Amino acid sequence: MTHEMEAVIKEYAHRAKQAASALALLSPEVKNQALHGLAEALRDSRNEILLANQKDIAAAVKGGEPESRLDRLRLSEARIEEMAHGLQMIAKLDDPVGVVDDVRIQHNGLVIEKTRVPFGVVAVIYESRPNVTVDAAALAFKTGNAVLLRGGKEARHSNEAITNVMRATFQSLHLPVDAIQLISVLDREVVDQLIQARGYIDLVIPRGGAALIERVVQGARVPVIETGVGNCHVYVDATADQAMAEEIVVNAKTQRPSVCNAIETILLHESLDPSFVRRLLSRLLSCGVEVRACEQTLLRLGEEEQTAISLATDDDFATEFLDLIVAVKVVRDLDEALGHIERFGTKHSEAIVTNDAASAQTFLSRVDAAVVYHNASTRFTDGFEFGFGAEIGISTQKLHARGPMGLRELTTYKYVVKGSGQVRG
Amino acid sequence: MTHEMEAVIKEYAHRAKQAASALALLSPEVKNQALHGLAEALRDSRNEILLANQKDIAAAVKGGEPESRLDRLRLSEARIEEMAHGLQMIAKLDDPVGVVDDVRIQHNGLVIEKTRVPFGVVAVIYESRPNVTVDAAALAFKTGNAVLLRGGKEARHSNEAITNVMRATFQSLHLPVDAIQLISVLDREVVDQLIQARGYIDLVIPRGGAALIERVVQGARVPVIETGVGNCHVYVDATADQAMAEEIVVNAKTQRPSVCNAIETILLHESLDPSFVRRLLSRLLSCGVEVRACEQTLLRLGEEEQTAISLATDDDFATEFLDLIVAVKVVRDLDEALGHIERFGTKHSEAIVTNDAASAQTFLSRVDAAVVYHNASTRFTDGFEFGFGAEIGISTQKLHARGPMGLRELTTYKYVVKGSGQVRG
Repeated sequence: MTHEMEAVIKEYAHRAKQAASALALLSPEVKNQALHGLAEALRDSRNEILLANQKDIAAAVKGGEPESRLDRLRLSEARIEEMAHGLQMIAKLDDPVGVVDDVRIQHNGLVIEKTRVPFGVVAVIYESRPNVTVDAAALAFKTGNAVLLRGGKEARHSNEAITNVMRATFQSLHLPVDAIQLISVLDREVVDQLIQARGYIDLVIPRGGAALIERVVQGARVPVIETGVGNCHVYVDATADQAMAEEIVVNAKTQRPSVCNAIETILLHESLDPSFVRRLLSRLLSCGVEVRACEQTLLRLGEEEQTAISLATDDDFATEFLDLIVAVKVVRDLDEALGHIERFGTKHSEAIVTNDAASAQTFLSRVDAAVVYHNASTRFTDGFEFGFGAEIGISTQKLHARGPMGLRELTTYKYVVKGSGQVRG
Repeated sequence: MTHEMEAVIKEYAHRAKQAASALALLSPEVKNQALHGLAEALRDSRNEILLANQKDIAAAVKGGEPESRLDRLRLSEARIEEMAHGLQMIAKLDDPVGVVDDVRIQHNGLVIEKTRVPFGVVAVIYESRPNVTVDAAALAFKTGNAVLLRGGKEARHSNEAITNVMRATFQSLHLPVDAIQLISVLDREVVDQLIQARGYIDLVIPRGGAALIERVVQGARVPVIETGVGNCHVYVDATADQAMAEEIVVNAKTQRPSVCNAIETILLHESLDPSFVRRLLSRLLSCGVEVRACEQTLLRLGEEEQTAISLATDDDFATEFLDLIVAVKVVRDLDEALGHIERFGTKHSEAIVTNDAASAQTFLSRVDAAVVYHNASTRFTDGFEFGFGAEIGISTQKLHARGPMGLRELTTYKYVVKGSGQVRG
């Protein structure tokens, strides 16, 4: 089976590579027209897509998936319109391919141009959310990359419907159809073959839960950009504006708990007024959030809140809940907060709420994460919110790209050197 | 043994991480003064270093190493001066750390600063050439990274002498000594532990032969930048200036055959004048180059040259000789040349010699390599020649960095977001 699957994946990759060569010849105008075409096609096909999505939702409900999971899977007219709008935004963005980032003219007359080029063949391995199918395909296409999409089994009807619409659009526009391929073979082994297809696939981007990311990182021979696991914190400093802290915490936890930039732990400076702690946690409880707090937190609460709150363990501090659950810990000072984030954080998004400029500066420079915030919600870690038009993922590692990855992060560069016979002395 | 070695490597990494935190607080001025201090110290200690190097050379001669290998290992007053001068050049270069590459002020008032930061702990695994010890340490130091150096066994006396000089200099300047650590444990298993120390080491850069690179890439769990394997080509097009082509080929092959940017194969357009082919290959033979040519090449030669030249196999085309050996192949056209490079090349440096602008453009855009040349020798793929002041390696992969890697390539970035209470709507 392994050899068979290897051959299947190499065949996909081979078609992708051929498509990538054709993509490299397309002008930005042709690519942008195609993106508008894709947007229209998605709108026109929304009924088929929603129908397919209902099949996936029905199966997930039957399988007993929690609501947070269903939310990630669910499409609606509004979400399809969001995807279509995203495509139009991508069309408006500058094409990074061919941009010369830097020119050096050497004393010997050599002209060295650092030129942005596509990676070639990019594989995206993801779970649940079908909008990733559109985002990944569009961002890869705009940057001249052919994409191999490996979505989750749970979203396969939705992903197939979306991919069929996109490929049909490319066909009608006489564009290389294999620029977008969904790998629909169900075998789990597909992922292992994708991440080991060194020399066939230029880059793998896993998007999903901790287990998927870990599996890809452990097994990969193809270069990988790790994305998405977000065990994010808000640290409320002694001098924080309490009303601001409350709004930021509530927003970062509850506005969309199923995504990676939602927070999982609140760190509270020990000198914060107990009445603020009570108000904050009561508000979270009233929003339906399950609270797991350290002993020091519980000591600050009334009997009523204490009964509603369980004692937090290190497991809780280490968990990306992706749900309406939050861990709370009282810390002695900024240093203890930094230590906690270093121990439990996943280098995604970390925020401090403080009115003390020195504390803010220390936090922003010492926290090792893709995005560090002063007095703002972690929910802004997002390609759209950063003005990238869309995102292929949020990198939580340091190589190549960090944080929201847009068009530029889907390109690499090469040096084009123009001479007149120069040799090295 | 494995657990013991794991603990040893984690202890090295832990010290490195602590040093890295201290490095982050140093001003560019302090770092640059330290670099000048290192340069002086190397000059002052040249006798000890040369003495240590002689031990390594003697062992290598005794071990029957070929001259190309000895050349890579050998130090001289001139090479030490070159290293010292390199340090002074690095001191003069701009410090990338803290540079804000991009600022976005969003409609909601959020200020998003894309800020250059060090990786943290960088491990460099290398072979033979002891100058890598200085280059790697200096580039890492200037960019605020602590470095773990794993040099080749064959250069260990040289590397120890150089590292001792650098650490003693740091000690006398009250700088964190563990910013530079040479891992002198001889066990081969050290490399396996280094490349699997995920979470302890932020980046691994292997520099060396194909076997080392392959071993690191196959076994790594830490992000890796592949460097250095250079199966490079010069393609002489139909319209090439013959004198220019001859100089470029001879320079690219013979000026320093033991390094990765030297060429290994010459591709000749079939319509080139046979007298040019004869002249070119006679010149190479007279330079002491062993020539292995395809049948079509042999047909173009006189009897005398034919006897001196053997028939090339696919193995020859696939080999990075790193020696005075060259493979030669006649191709029908540019397309066949591109196909050959795609099949046998290692995405390092590739050159075309032509007077035809269209051929040049096609070659420069279609060849997938870190550096592509028109009418120049591949020997320029080098951090100094590119004006980077030094190089940590030449990347032959596409993620993060391609081609010569200098200071900027040893940093990553993080987004620093400053708000005034913004939450996501």
